[in-house]
Amino acid sequence: MKNIVGSPGTVSGLILRVGQCLCAAAAISTMASAPKFSRYTAFCYLIASMGLQVLWSLGLMCLDIYSLRTKRDLQNPVIVSLFVVGDWVTATLSLAAACSSAGVVILYAKDLDFCRFLPHHSCSAFQISICFAFVAWFLMAMSSHVMFWLLASTY
Amino acid sequence: MKNIVGSPGTVSGLILRVGQCLCAAAAISTMASAPKFSRYTAFCYLIASMGLQVLWSLGLMCLDIYSLRTKRDLQNPVIVSLFVVGDWVTATLSLAAACSSAGVVILYAKDLDFCRFLPHHSCSAFQISICFAFVAWFLMAMSSHVMFWLLASTY
Repeated sequence: MKNIVGSPGTVSGLILRVGQCLCAAAAISTMASAPKFSRYTAFCYLIASMGLQVLWSLGLMCLDIYSLRTKRDLQNPVIVSLFVVGDWVTATLSLAAACSSAGVVILYAKDLDFCRFLPHHSCSAFQISICFAFVAWFLMAMSSHVMFWLLASTY
Repeated sequence: MKNIVGSPGTVSGLILRVGQCLCAAAAISTMASAPKFSRYTAFCYLIASMGLQVLWSLGLMCLDIYSLRTKRDLQNPVIVSLFVVGDWVTATLSLAAACSSAGVVILYAKDLDFCRFLPHHSCSAFQISICFAFVAWFLMAMSSHVMFWLLASTY
């Protein structure tokens, strides 16, 4: 297998996982700080999806640290296949959560103009959380592409 | 390059493109038939995104038919790179459109219970259109994975 930026067991891979974890955690904390977020299914789904991303990235982060410390090679086809499936599922769920929440916020902020007339809706917290979720998705999409490339280039 | 199910210039690839085209067209026509859909940014974005998917899939469908008739090989790295970028952009935009519209419909149908009390909202047409959009995204995701695999396996 090749050594691409962001591949498992490298420093760049570890940095990518740390970034994913931090952005997903920031999205969760910003959304949870907004009052009445739990009334909206899309926002609850965002928290669930970002929670899954935190767990997944944290797991792979620990594996990267272990690999860097012990100089073990993580790039065998079976392990990379598992990473590919996990990364793709997490990335797709993250994009779906970010987009469905963005759809609701755009409806409130632009189509219905609720944010201006009802300031208790805490639109800005929702918007910041969704921005973090999109960054988290982007970082996850990057690592899932790297994993898929690594796997495909072995066949 | 390898001959995978759904690769360009094959019958399975042509069937995949026809399916993408039909599902995207069905999503557009169902959404456009619902009254007052244009009030919602998410639904307008769904129509725009599905329109892009129809154009892209139609173009590649014509290319597949040309390749099957003239027995020309479409699988060189430059052409496949173009297909990969186009397929990935279209698939991501389709998923984003389907999810943002689904977020709005779930807000109306479940969180606010508008669909029961305000039947003029034509929720069922929105829901059917979003189902078609998800199927169109799934077919596009399939062909984008095949293209990426084809490209990666050459390096």
